[in-house]
Amino acid sequence: MDDVTEAPRGPVVERVPEGDERPRMVCDDCGFINYENPKIIVGAVVTWGDKYLLARRAIEPRKGFWTIPAGFMELNESAEAGAAREVMEEAQAEVEVGALLGVYSLHHINQVHLIYRAEMTTPDHGAGYESQEVALVDWADIPWSELAFPSVRWALEAHHRHRGETNFAPETCPEIPHRIE
Amino acid sequence: MDDVTEAPRGPVVERVPEGDERPRMVCDDCGFINYENPKIIVGAVVTWGDKYLLARRAIEPRKGFWTIPAGFMELNESAEAGAAREVMEEAQAEVEVGALLGVYSLHHINQVHLIYRAEMTTPDHGAGYESQEVALVDWADIPWSELAFPSVRWALEAHHRHRGETNFAPETCPEIPHRIE
Ligand SMILES: [Zn+2]
Ligand SMILES: [Zn+2]
Repeated sequence: MDDVTEAPRGPVVERVPEGDERPRMVCDDCGFINYENPKIIVGAVVTWGDKYLLARRAIEPRKGFWTIPAGFMELNESAEAGAAREVMEEAQAEVEVGALLGVYSLHHINQVHLIYRAEMTTPDHGAGYESQEVALVDWADIPWSELAFPSVRWALEAHHRHRGETNFAPETCPEIPHRIE
Repeated sequence: MDDVTEAPRGPVVERVPEGDERPRMVCDDCGFINYENPKIIVGAVVTWGDKYLLARRAIEPRKGFWTIPAGFMELNESAEAGAAREVMEEAQAEVEVGALLGVYSLHHINQVHLIYRAEMTTPDHGAGYESQEVALVDWADIPWSELAFPSVRWALEAHHRHRGETNFAPETCPEIPHRIE
């Protein structure tokens, strides 16, 4: 009789499944194959007039650092709707989503960031549960040295560069720091 | 003693995990939580001079219909690299990937399509194992009624509309047919 006292552990074994070409994470307890794909982060550079909406992160990674509202795109929403949802969740602000500012393939962490331009429809905002603090700041007061991720800087700079433009190609990663492979 | 003869089935139970807000698919055999996120399809409208590279699908869905090269983005690649990989896999052509033509959120099937403009670097092409046939066709000869998916038409039309342009916003879904929810 097999010893079944050991707790099963989910898809933690790396193997090339039959009929596939690449190694996938499989579970030897239940046979599940976890087809891991890159995940989509949706977010927005949000403005009210000339001011930028920034949130100080209440959660790891980079707790205490400033970010734009962004997070994992969920099922059954468009990228634009997801970006608006993240703004509401993290900064309690209602926005209209506009142009796509950047498509950042962060392949060292298997994420593609779709970052939009968005304008608040009212000045109301506040800290969602993932934020310690939310603020509307002038361009000159953006805390560049306290931004949570390089992609936050890229997106803010893309927004600034494309002020007044309505038809432009989204930017891509200007650099891939900390590449791990 | 538990009856352990029944085969475990992987993450097939829908439940809101502790500390989460949304229902996820969980496995009662091993406790694995399958955080399903939208998947990214990367592809390209590929040209050689004035001709468009189309592939007739050798696999379901829409076997026998014509498509542009496109498929699931894999781990550890940029979106542009993934699009070039798909062109090589499905149409055995080497390309240089250029402008982003479209970002199509197909939320009824939980896919985001990132479709690029790409130019062949040589006229060589051929049928990969997912294609019955690969052809270079004039715009006038595109088999519009035999295209595999609406997004193929959208991308081809986006390509045609933006000929000669180098800095333009990617298009989005002009329509979401067959919306299921
Ligand atoms: Zn399992
Ligand atoms: Zn399981």
